[in-house]
Amino acid sequence: MILVNGECKQHIEISDRGFQYGDGLFETIEVRNGQPVFLDRHLKRLNTGCRRLHIPCPDSEVITAEALDLCKDSSLAVLKLIVTRGSGGRGYRQPDLIQPTRVLSLHPYPDYPSSFVEQGIIARFCTTRLGLNPSLAGIKHMNRLEQILARAEWNDPAIQEGIMMDVNDHIIEGTMTNLFYVKNGSVYTASLSQSGIAGIMRSIIIEILSSNHIKTVEKPFKKNEFLSADEIFVSNSIIGLWPINQIENKHFSIGPLTRQIQFCLDRLKSGAEASLP
Amino acid sequence: MILVNGECKQHIEISDRGFQYGDGLFETIEVRNGQPVFLDRHLKRLNTGCRRLHIPCPDSEVITAEALDLCKDSSLAVLKLIVTRGSGGRGYRQPDLIQPTRVLSLHPYPDYPSSFVEQGIIARFCTTRLGLNPSLAGIKHMNRLEQILARAEWNDPAIQEGIMMDVNDHIIEGTMTNLFYVKNGSVYTASLSQSGIAGIMRSIIIEILSSNHIKTVEKPFKKNEFLSADEIFVSNSIIGLWPINQIENKHFSIGPLTRQIQFCLDRLKSGAEASLP
Repeated sequence: MILVNGECKQHIEISDRGFQYGDGLFETIEVRNGQPVFLDRHLKRLNTGCRRLHIPCPDSEVITAEALDLCKDSSLAVLKLIVTRGSGGRGYRQPDLIQPTRVLSLHPYPDYPSSFVEQGIIARFCTTRLGLNPSLAGIKHMNRLEQILARAEWNDPAIQEGIMMDVNDHIIEGTMTNLFYVKNGSVYTASLSQSGIAGIMRSIIIEILSSNHIKTVEKPFKKNEFLSADEIFVSNSIIGLWPINQIENKHFSIGPLTRQIQFCLDRLKSGAEASLP
Repeated sequence: MILVNGECKQHIEISDRGFQYGDGLFETIEVRNGQPVFLDRHLKRLNTGCRRLHIPCPDSEVITAEALDLCKDSSLAVLKLIVTRGSGGRGYRQPDLIQPTRVLSLHPYPDYPSSFVEQGIIARFCTTRLGLNPSLAGIKHMNRLEQILARAEWNDPAIQEGIMMDVNDHIIEGTMTNLFYVKNGSVYTASLSQSGIAGIMRSIIIEILSSNHIKTVEKPFKKNEFLSADEIFVSNSIIGLWPINQIENKHFSIGPLTRQIQFCLDRLKSGAEASLP
């Protein structure tokens, strides 16, 4: 089922700038037991993105009511929320009166085996690079050709994620995940001031670490440093956290910090306080 | 009127990846006396773009027939042609079987006064930068948030175009045009290997110059060099060529080479051979 501005629809106007130019933002939200998980955080990021793109953000209460209605009968699913600049004439110039379009759609939860969480996944490096663009970095906008080209680089079902670098060879993120690595007890992740998406699960993991007095260092890093890590894991709102056990020919063990964060995430989702065991 | 895969429609499926991710390409084509101008060149660029994005390009003959049918009663209009990767599931991974969507739509020709061609326009520098991305540079894809943010920077109707730089301060293009400048009889334009769109009118101007033994130098250049030019002009398929007579507080005269290229363009459009007068 899909709701477009509150009405059940399968289609969108061709003049919608989301279709014409990718002129909008989206959120991908886990649904469990009829509830969109971390919805408040997703709505906050959506608001930030709308401010960055000068799109008037639809009312959070309206979105929440529609989301709850759409999800109420789903025990496990994915809710996708799109907000575009709405319809407008031909040309890049935005209309004088912006009437945003909001689209909420429910999708099946992907059938990832539990081994991805428990034993980790295999990743590869992508040749497609992320462009540098401070005006778009961090937000989850609808211009996603880089990720599509990167994801089209492999078909091997044994490989679950592709790691993307920017044009300066800095490792930024996976095609659909954020990346963390652990080295000598410290945790590192890419800074996202020039490219990449600031994931909701990424921020939750940083908060879990912080509340346990572990600072996550956001910094630029390259392949050699990354491959010398003790533990590596990826995250997003749907998968939670997957350890990486192999990148190309290099193997990684699933370390204690990875396991502790997974434990905290599970507790956080079930409403308990998130402190490391 | 809009044709979606040959059928009259106003809407597109929400699952279309053009809407979900800007996963597609477009062409903006002048229509004169019922004919799409330089259609063969637009279809060639569309084919190149499809190859770059791994989208099977719809048959040129089918597009041509639909375009001619759509345009047949228009003395002056704009034809927009969109090709997307078609519908697909949630997620960046492209479907195993790609069934592209083609959309042809007819739009009013913008009411630009003739003074823009004759006396030139005023331009400004945009603060929004173009990201660097060799995998997407040159093609006219549907990820256009950079241009939208740049075009949203000004509302002054006296300013007709915004000049965009990349993150390294190299001047690349206008928000909707390519840029050329003339200095000491030589013609320069930005190289588009890292960002920007390789416009059809840009290539025609380069060919006109070449057939008159004037080489257009494609190279990186910055603001100071650009502002020291003798002549500056912008181009696209709808406007043809507009001289720039002012950028911020600096004035430019409309030089002889600009006028000669305009003359050749007019002759080319009316079917005559393009050699400088």
